[in-house]
Amino acid sequence: MKISALLTSAGINIGLCVLFLSLYSVLRKQPANVRVYFGRRIAEEHDRLRGAFILERFVPSTGWIVKALQCTEEEILAAAGLDAVAFNRILVFSIRIFTLAALLCVFGILPLNYFGQDIHHVRIPSESLDIFTIGNVEVKSRWLWVHCVTLYIISGVACILLYIEYKHIARLRLLHLTSATPKPSHFTVLVRGIPKADKESCSDVVDGFFTKYHSSSYLFHQVVYKAGKVQKIMTGAKKAYKKFKHFTDETVDQGCRTITYRCCLCGASSNSFKLLNTECEQNRGKADNKSILDLDDEECTAAFVFFKTRYAALVASEILQTSNPMKWVANLAPEPEDVYWSNLWLPYKQLWARRIATLLGSICFMFIFLIPVTFIQGLSQLEQLQQRLPFLRGILKKKYYMTQLVTGYLPSVILQIFLYTVAPIMMLFSTLEGPTSHSERKRSACCKVLIFTVWNIFFANVLSGTVISQLNVLSSPRTYLSSLLKLYLDRKYVLRMREDTEFVPSFPYHTEVPKVLLFGLLGFTLSVLAPLILPFLLVYFCLGYVVYRNQLLNVYRTRYDTGGLYWPIACSTVIFSLVLTQIICLGVFGLKESPVAAGFTIPLIILTLLFNQYCRNRLLPLFKTFPAQDLIDMDREDERSGRIDEIHHGLHSAYCQFPDTVDVPLEKIEIVGGDEEQGSTSGESSGKETCEDPKKDLSHPTLKGLPVNRLRHAVRSVTFLIRLQKRGLSEQKIG
Amino acid sequence: MKISALLTSAGINIGLCVLFLSLYSVLRKQPANVRVYFGRRIAEEHDRLRGAFILERFVPSTGWIVKALQCTEEEILAAAGLDAVAFNRILVFSIRIFTLAALLCVFGILPLNYFGQDIHHVRIPSESLDIFTIGNVEVKSRWLWVHCVTLYIISGVACILLYIEYKHIARLRLLHLTSATPKPSHFTVLVRGIPKADKESCSDVVDGFFTKYHSSSYLFHQVVYKAGKVQKIMTGAKKAYKKFKHFTDETVDQGCRTITYRCCLCGASSNSFKLLNTECEQNRGKADNKSILDLDDEECTAAFVFFKTRYAALVASEILQTSNPMKWVANLAPEPEDVYWSNLWLPYKQLWARRIATLLGSICFMFIFLIPVTFIQGLSQLEQLQQRLPFLRGILKKKYYMTQLVTGYLPSVILQIFLYTVAPIMMLFSTLEGPTSHSERKRSACCKVLIFTVWNIFFANVLSGTVISQLNVLSSPRTYLSSLLKLYLDRKYVLRMREDTEFVPSFPYHTEVPKVLLFGLLGFTLSVLAPLILPFLLVYFCLGYVVYRNQLLNVYRTRYDTGGLYWPIACSTVIFSLVLTQIICLGVFGLKESPVAAGFTIPLIILTLLFNQYCRNRLLPLFKTFPAQDLIDMDREDERSGRIDEIHHGLHSAYCQFPDTVDVPLEKIEIVGGDEEQGSTSGESSGKETCEDPKKDLSHPTLKGLPVNRLRHAVRSVTFLIRLQKRGLSEQKIG
Repeated sequence: MKISALLTSAGINIGLCVLFLSLYSVLRKQPANVRVYFGRRIAEEHDRLRGAFILERFVPSTGWIVKALQCTEEEILAAAGLDAVAFNRILVFSIRIFTLAALLCVFGILPLNYFGQDIHHVRIPSESLDIFTIGNVEVKSRWLWVHCVTLYIISGVACILLYIEYKHIARLRLLHLTSATPKPSHFTVLVRGIPKADKESCSDVVDGFFTKYHSSSYLFHQVVYKAGKVQKIMTGAKKAYKKFKHFTDETVDQGCRTITYRCCLCGASSNSFKLLNTECEQNRGKADNKSILDLDDEECTAAFVFFKTRYAALVASEILQTSNPMKWVANLAPEPEDVYWSNLWLPYKQLWARRIATLLGSICFMFIFLIPVTFIQGLSQLEQLQQRLPFLRGILKKKYYMTQLVTGYLPSVILQIFLYTVAPIMMLFSTLEGPTSHSERKRSACCKVLIFTVWNIFFANVLSGTVISQLNVLSSPRTYLSSLLKLYLDRKYVLRMREDTEFVPSFPYHTEVPKVLLFGLLGFTLSVLAPLILPFLLVYFCLGYVVYRNQLLNVYRTRYDTGGLYWPIACSTVIFSLVLTQIICLGVFGLKESPVAAGFTIPLIILTLLFNQYCRNRLLPLFKTFPAQDLIDMDREDERSGRIDEIHHGLHSAYCQFPDTVDVPLEKIEIVGGDEEQGSTSGESSGKETCEDPKKDLSHPTLKGLPVNRLRHAVRSVTFLIRLQKRGLSEQKIG
Repeated sequence: MKISALLTSAGINIGLCVLFLSLYSVLRKQPANVRVYFGRRIAEEHDRLRGAFILERFVPSTGWIVKALQCTEEEILAAAGLDAVAFNRILVFSIRIFTLAALLCVFGILPLNYFGQDIHHVRIPSESLDIFTIGNVEVKSRWLWVHCVTLYIISGVACILLYIEYKHIARLRLLHLTSATPKPSHFTVLVRGIPKADKESCSDVVDGFFTKYHSSSYLFHQVVYKAGKVQKIMTGAKKAYKKFKHFTDETVDQGCRTITYRCCLCGASSNSFKLLNTECEQNRGKADNKSILDLDDEECTAAFVFFKTRYAALVASEILQTSNPMKWVANLAPEPEDVYWSNLWLPYKQLWARRIATLLGSICFMFIFLIPVTFIQGLSQLEQLQQRLPFLRGILKKKYYMTQLVTGYLPSVILQIFLYTVAPIMMLFSTLEGPTSHSERKRSACCKVLIFTVWNIFFANVLSGTVISQLNVLSSPRTYLSSLLKLYLDRKYVLRMREDTEFVPSFPYHTEVPKVLLFGLLGFTLSVLAPLILPFLLVYFCLGYVVYRNQLLNVYRTRYDTGGLYWPIACSTVIFSLVLTQIICLGVFGLKESPVAAGFTIPLIILTLLFNQYCRNRLLPLFKTFPAQDLIDMDREDERSGRIDEIHHGLHSAYCQFPDTVDVPLEKIEIVGGDEEQGSTSGESSGKETCEDPKKDLSHPTLKGLPVNRLRHAVRSVTFLIRLQKRGLSEQKIG
């Protein structure tokens, strides 16, 4: 690989970048794309540009770049949440450290490497890239201390910057906790592993336990039901309604009475089907009828338990409840919109097995993925490429630049195609693992993708090459870099276009965080050894900074947030990168027979690890739990301001297991139920259910049982009526 | 190594065992040794045998063996605590699993190995030991499935037995928690990392924080003072007293008044020096004098905080108190007699660095220790032995049995001598780490010794040998075994004799647990490969069972207890041993080209790891914290029975920082102090200190300040008076 090839590759990539940036500038102004590029804002703004033809629309502009750069951290925090800020800080950190590294290495290390051996230098464009790496420095060179000192400076500054950022995000996290409007999740604990009782219903068991052991702070609870069955019925009902809503109200409006089914699914206390979708109110009292609770035993595996104070919820979530650690497992609940309902009913005792199974699966996947990587590794060597793809032989022999293009570009494109499969597969693994929230799922996928990427792209690529090509691989990772420079941009376009324009996705942290961190890893490992990479990397980070900020502000919607939990991942990865760099340098210094440089690197490794341990002790706990002091202060403040009752009231409707039904105006269904339904169930328990005693203890409203069979019944009758309507029989009947 | 050499070694060891057992039987009956062999019981019983000469005393007997075997687990629990039971269960588990393994392997595997190759067998005593190992089985043998099935059975039964024992000890731990008399440690939290305040004293800071954030459950607190200075003074006082007590009371009794110094060191409210040693009562009120608190700022780093209920203490210890995880770090306090006072004042922020430093130290020590191990490794080969110790050459050439003895015995003796240094050094490392309790220190040392032993004796021994001698090393670890068979017995005699007979030591779990576990590791790894070791191992465990039970019941005193925390260490080690065995077998099956046996071993490894994970999820949390349910039940029971006030009252005197002074009857010192002392301090603050207001709030008695300078003064005057006495001047003065 020569300088000219690198420059060709860089030229192509820069050209593509400019092209795509211009395209973006134009496309974003087209009315048809407004949902794509301003998904997040679409709810607030009107599509005022639609229709009108304005020439300005087709002229590339830079205003959006200025806007993206100008927005403050507070704006990002408000628009896209703490995760976006954490991601932004990762980019800021990268830009800062690599600016320093680029300055030090390009002006300090690069000349040393270039003039490292007393050889005749040809024109720079024809020079091999190896001339610019540490490989060109003479063995036992007395200039290696410069490399060592540079390594010290980079590591030291990186640690200082990391610490500042870590502290900053920890502070933001606390601010986020304390300054935000009261969140229901702070008062709520998700309890899993509820033991079965033969005589009592699940709800009674939960109530009994918390009334007994947390009596002073326990408020009420809400049982989570096995999603499979109920969800199926609800979906059925939804479909039925959709079919039905095409009929006008008048045709069925006459003489129909409301269905008197009570919805216990999400705590609706209503005596009609209607309230299910309007609001998830609490169940005002306990159903006395035990006979309909038969389904409980197998279906109740989790419950949301609400507490009077945040502190009480925190305490309940931190302590070991009983002498069986697999029973009554309590954790702070995720935000209502963050809950991953379909995983909640998974038996807790399954989870550890699932976790191990997915771990094994991920490891297997990593090793299977070595096959395409090895293949690509071969491709980057021209001879092997010609052997494997013989049709290229003719082209490659003719044109020199074509050769450069193919070796510099083709492997990375193929690798990219394979890499596109990684994120979905890791997301699948994370789903199977059984997380209870969307954010946890995405974070878990992020870790998996990160480990996968580092292992496969970095290690496996190095390990699968021969020892000789090893340094070559190390010095030419710009294949991934340059391709990504383009791909992360056009991905936004190409893929976005195809997607449902009504659906505003949330930011794919699980693919973008590992990508940025991988470039950080490459940057660190190559900084001292092959500093020529650093300017390119810096361009990437700067470009990424602008584009990601724009995307976070305009394109993606933040539906859930981990509260900055991506930062500890980033910090660990950076420290891993630093230590890896130091170990590689130690090896290289050893090979160059410089005992002084090698000897001085060892304390640096120990110091970096010490710094890591310090961060883990000093700041990591803040990302794992909430400090009691702040929670107590918030509780007292709410108590003082009298807001606490309002908050408690809001908790009743906070967690709704089947929010899908909200967009179905089921009032319409009410109209249909009719005599038939009334007759078929009134003998059973309708009397008991409609007689709600309003005087019953409000502080412990519980959801008693799940009348699935009744709901099923209702759905059946609705669909039956629909069929009647379709056959044109209804008029005759009603008439 | 031939069978005859093994038998020689075994014969010597068995002979030594019988000799030592007989010796023990005799020695234990000698009145002079009663303190050695019945240290624990000495307080209860009278030395009734002293003096009288009875022939029976010199006849070996087996009664003590029967007694040791007959005692029930309840007796051990009552006499030696839960740790002793856990240790006993490790031995029981080992005996059970190795009985099974010995039966399976000696009758199943051994014949297969012996007739594995179609060779002519010589007389068994002359056979090489290799004939009995798996090395003798033919490559591609169709009998290897027997080895694989045996491995499955041993692993499966081991896991089942482990689980049963784990559950049993967890149950005992809970029973121990709930059935015991109320322990002050359950109500107490050790708080470290108390932030400094410029204006307030440390005690006020603690009081303010807990009154504010744990107001409903906070009782009072007790500040821990920097031990170094005070301890030095106290020791000085003690020595001074010892010198002084030879004088009779009359000589100094005349005209002396009491010293009016108040002891604030351990919360004594007295206005004289006397009460310090009689009882550590709480300080009834707050000292108003701020000027004497100058020492506080630098010296207050920890405090015991007492709560009204066990549950409140648990909660305070589990949650993150503030947004700085290095401040207000709360942990459940150790038992009063378990507190390692001299570490308590260590600044919390130092601890992580100390931990890493000791980790590095331990690793360095491990590698340095490789030097003697490599040396010994060489010794076990006869040729190298003759080279290194030329004077042996003559002896070894002459006598065959001498050769056997030297190769079978000498290396292990040398190794033992080196190994004796390990436990003290690891104990030193553990002390430097900064544990807050004796039991934690011992447990930490146990872990270190265990890792060290496994690494050095097992791995390093294998790795430092050549590849050829590798299997040889694996098949002859009886060198350590046989020597230990003897040494762990005579150690009890030889070392015990030398020690201070007044001092009853606590059981050295940190050396004995690793020893037993190492033999388990050897047993597992060799069971399938070289089953000849198993009968010897079984003898060792049985012998150990009897001897350790006897020692636990009669010799050692249980001053502190980890509450069975040695068991999780043992369980992890056993699982590690099993997995290592399986991996070695996998390798051997691979070498023997048996894909079926090798293939079936892989799922076994995964299953064993799954079992480990299950245990960690299901049972390990019980060893890390207490279940809230049980604590709440206990709190309610105490509340109901009215015992709670009594318990709260008892807490005031539970933790006494300087208990060393208890055995010094300092009433005597009172007599001496005299005018001189009174005069020298009365002008300062004696008035303020003696004026204790009994009406002050009893619920928040705090220890305000530390009058170190006064105490020092007191000690000085005591020693001064002693000098006077010695010079015979006192009579003149008093007279």
